[in-house]
Amino acid sequence: MNPIALLDYAGVAVFAATGALAASRKQLDIIGFLFLASGIGGGTLRDVILNLPVFWVANSSYVLICAAVAVLVFFAAHRVESRWKWLLWLDAIGLAAFSVMGAAKGLAITGSPVVSVITGVLTATSGGILRDLLAGEPSVLLRPEIYVTAALAGAAIFTAGDVTGLPPIFSELAGFAAAFAVRGGA
Amino acid sequence: MNPIALLDYAGVAVFAATGALAASRKQLDIIGFLFLASGIGGGTLRDVILNLPVFWVANSSYVLICAAVAVLVFFAAHRVESRWKWLLWLDAIGLAAFSVMGAAKGLAITGSPVVSVITGVLTATSGGILRDLLAGEPSVLLRPEIYVTAALAGAAIFTAGDVTGLPPIFSELAGFAAAFAVRGGA
Amino acid sequence: MNPIALLDYAGVAVFAATGALAASRKQLDIIGFLFLASGIGGGTLRDVILNLPVFWVANSSYVLICAAVAVLVFFAAHRVESRWKWLLWLDAIGLAAFSVMGAAKGLAITGSPVVSVITGVLTATSGGILRDLLAGEPSVLLRPEIYVTAALAGAAIFTAGDVTGLPPIFSELAGFAAAFAVRGGA
Repeated sequence: MNPIALLDYAGVAVFAATGALAASRKQLDIIGFLFLASGIGGGTLRDVILNLPVFWVANSSYVLICAAVAVLVFFAAHRVESRWKWLLWLDAIGLAAFSVMGAAKGLAITGSPVVSVITGVLTATSGGILRDLLAGEPSVLLRPEIYVTAALAGAAIFTAGDVTGLPPIFSELAGFAAAFAVRGGA
Repeated sequence: MNPIALLDYAGVAVFAATGALAASRKQLDIIGFLFLASGIGGGTLRDVILNLPVFWVANSSYVLICAAVAVLVFFAAHRVESRWKWLLWLDAIGLAAFSVMGAAKGLAITGSPVVSVITGVLTATSGGILRDLLAGEPSVLLRPEIYVTAALAGAAIFTAGDVTGLPPIFSELAGFAAAFAVRGGA
Repeated sequence: MNPIALLDYAGVAVFAATGALAASRKQLDIIGFLFLASGIGGGTLRDVILNLPVFWVANSSYVLICAAVAVLVFFAAHRVESRWKWLLWLDAIGLAAFSVMGAAKGLAITGSPVVSVITGVLTATSGGILRDLLAGEPSVLLRPEIYVTAALAGAAIFTAGDVTGLPPIFSELAGFAAAFAVRGGA
């Protein structure tokens, strides 16, 4: 498994954990629904908009990861909750990874830098937005403008690098670092 | 028309009725929008995720059923409202039918039991979730965890039956009965 | 560029402006997200439901128009806000244009008048509904029943005209005028 695919799984798992925590904080039992929304919501929207097979329909191990995270958080929510800070950083990793991978998929399919930036932002942010809509919270982890700005930075810098012909790994790391810095620095 | 197809139409009609009742309870005039959301929302999401033609685009009689229910409820809302209990049971039928049919469609297209369970849950629950989001209600009929649990039971038992080679009609009835029991028993 | 295509761009721009104003009124910084939702949300849902390539993925100039409107409103929000009345009329133009174009696309793809009316209503209203859900407002510009009724009038009259064999430009203008009259007259 290459590093980027590993980040993809990690992003799904981390966002699933934030959904499970949101459910736990509101004392909801619909844990599964919320972390599915968080973990696979953004990538689902991306694939539907790009008219691609939805990633977890093609490869259901993503759903199993979400389910495994659910069980873990269900038995360890108290412990994870006290590690809120740790989770904030993991969430920043997920956001940064998804902004780059959403943009990469959009750019590969359409060749359009504009579409690439938009799919990067949508992939990174819409899972969390859906989670907050369903949980009836305005925003769980952070003020939304930082979220969107960080995703925009990651997607735009990756896209700019890729369009100007930099090696993919370099564009990916630069986009990831930019999104992580904006999100983590806030 | 076979029994399952009949249940499909019945499910759409019953969920359309719950949407119209939600609109009536909040004294909204956007009845049509709410019961369209309730009646065809879940199946639309299922078909989009599975990359299939959306069922009511391929066969618009589903929309006409929703419209017919709208007119009926518009002229009889007072009467139906006093039969709340009766509607709760109909809603349980719709939920049970959609959890099985959503799973069956997911399984037929992908062959993956995991995807089958998820599409069953999404089909049965997302129409009602969309209705409540649009109506600004936390939950109209029941606490959401029962809703999701019932759909999960129906989809999982149908899928388990089908994967282990039971005759379709048996898996369908077992899944339907499980979802109906969890939902109706709560 | 023919007149209808011009209206298409105008509708996207006008709805983008209403999203940016909604963000400005709530003092949100996620302007971009809200006006993307408003400007391209309805057409995205339409294309996904009809299983067509999403219009702004195929032609990213729509996104650039949204971005240009964002910058304009960002520097002129104060001025535009004082021209609220003027915006209400522009919004009526966007609604009327989208109800006709959504119906036209649905009818061209499926040949079904029922689907045509539904896609017209969804295209014209769902961008604004998404905007209000994300902004946490019940309704920014007007009570929703007028919004849905106006879209229904526009889509139904266009569809009726087109099905009965009237020249397209006549059906389009009649539908546009009907939606505009219902929306603007309220």
